[in-house]
Amino acid sequence: MKELKINSEGINHSAINLGSLDELKDYSYMHPKRKQEVKGKVFIGEILKSSSAEISFTVFPPHTEMPFFHQHKNNEEIYVVIKGSGQFQIDDSLFDISEGSVIRVSPEGKRTYRNNSDSPLTFLCIQNKMGSLDQFNVEDGCLAECENLWEKE
Amino acid sequence: MKELKINSEGINHSAINLGSLDELKDYSYMHPKRKQEVKGKVFIGEILKSSSAEISFTVFPPHTEMPFFHQHKNNEEIYVVIKGSGQFQIDDSLFDISEGSVIRVSPEGKRTYRNNSDSPLTFLCIQNKMGSLDQFNVEDGCLAECENLWEKE
Repeated sequence: MKELKINSEGINHSAINLGSLDELKDYSYMHPKRKQEVKGKVFIGEILKSSSAEISFTVFPPHTEMPFFHQHKNNEEIYVVIKGSGQFQIDDSLFDISEGSVIRVSPEGKRTYRNNSDSPLTFLCIQNKMGSLDQFNVEDGCLAECENLWEKE
Repeated sequence: MKELKINSEGINHSAINLGSLDELKDYSYMHPKRKQEVKGKVFIGEILKSSSAEISFTVFPPHTEMPFFHQHKNNEEIYVVIKGSGQFQIDDSLFDISEGSVIRVSPEGKRTYRNNSDSPLTFLCIQNKMGSLDQFNVEDGCLAECENLWEKE
């Protein structure tokens, strides 16, 4: 089982490197309630000290499916498919997913998915509190003065 | 210039497909203040109707760099490197990034990055409100009853 390691940290940041996204299958996650090891899944919100998002990476083997539907209490989820293909169901909508698919699900959405292909399905899932974003991009960002370090290398 | 299209939508979800992540260079973004077209960048928060996250995908060509540092007012950013390699600087920390790197930056962090390699650098950037997440995973998720539609196909 692969371990997560911080590779840069400062007062305003934390950074890790998961390694090749084809090797995510070497991570695993111990489900805290079911006490079951889930292979090919890694959560990174805690190690990154994120205060706004939980993010997981998952590799779903060929011809496997989530054995249940789930909902959330407060959090919106956004799934981003990095590689492979499969199907996603939310409530009474069933649709195909593949590399580049991005799916937003409200807390109430009953969701499940499967990999019905012959190749691994790799995706990330971002979990944030519904309704929490007030402003973004040019409203939230601003230029900053800082000495560029790579110019000194 | 490629257009974004919804490919499934319901009361609790919105889904798009950006297509192959190697083809992200065909998207572009019109900077609302500088009135400049930024190639290889696409924001998806609005089309997904996300209320908690802004997400952008970027392909940064070989040997290019951000010409400035930036900070945020309220939002944390998380960068996820999907392909390629480069360097990231936050405040006085400069470090290498590559496929599988994930970097969390607090609003105050002065950040910039470059692609100092011979291949494209592809990453996504997730923007959420600092301090907004109260609970996640098994605390926030719960099982749901729903009829499985792929079993009827």
